Amino acid sequence: MSNTKALPVPDPADARAVAPCCPPLTERPFTAEEAETAARMFKALGDPVRLRLFSAVASHEGGEACVCDISDVGVSQPTVSHHLKKLKEAGLLASERRGTWVYYRVEPSVLAAMGKLLTGPSAAA
Amino acid sequence: MSNTKALPVPDPADARAVAPCCPPLTERPFTAEEAETAARMFKALGDPVRLRLFSAVASHEGGEACVCDISDVGVSQPTVSHHLKKLKEAGLLASERRGTWVYYRVEPSVLAAMGKLLTGPSAAA
Repeated sequence: MSNTKALPVPDPADARAVAPCCPPLTERPFTAEEAETAARMFKALGDPVRLRLFSAVASHEGGEACVCDISDVGVSQPTVSHHLKKLKEAGLLASERRGTWVYYRVEPSVLAAMGKLLTGPSAAA
Repeated sequence: MSNTKALPVPDPADARAVAPCCPPLTERPFTAEEAETAARMFKALGDPVRLRLFSAVASHEGGEACVCDISDVGVSQPTVSHHLKKLKEAGLLASERRGTWVYYRVEPSVLAAMGKLLTGPSAAA
């Protein structure tokens, strides 16, 4: 029996962002560290253009989208790219380059963790 | 039979803030107006100190707290008051003056709506 497993090794930066950071808001006061982590995610969604882009990716066919798929938010393509990068840095989107384009996909585990943080354990169902 | 009812008349500003604004993020791209409303709430939680204060109120005994109950977040009482007012303006807290102090209480319907927005209809259970 071997301890070696062929599991993919996650990028530590991604793992930190994706890990559910915090208890439900109603359970106990957040520590400074928990608040830093969670506030970073909320802040990323706290800009109207970024939130529209995030919902455009999240609701796109197949659950992913590239800049080439997003044209109706009223901002330039470089601005779209900038915001998608910010959402990725906050751990809300994952990305993968395929050919010419970078495709973005929502991290469902992060949304679930944020939802649970807001509404308590009942949202985990 | 009378059409007159003795229901409390909600403050229109509160009602606007409290109403669930938006479909789940994964359902369809947000309109500009939906994104404005939801981003305002996320932005209010996008500051670490404000998020700590919010969790301090949300987790306080009885579900409410005044500035006098919050002393361990490492900011001055005027700063606490400032942040609680911002959270109220974003529709996340309700407040009531009783004697010397203003008591803040989390709006559970707003948290539920934000949770549903993030995780989809399953979070409504």
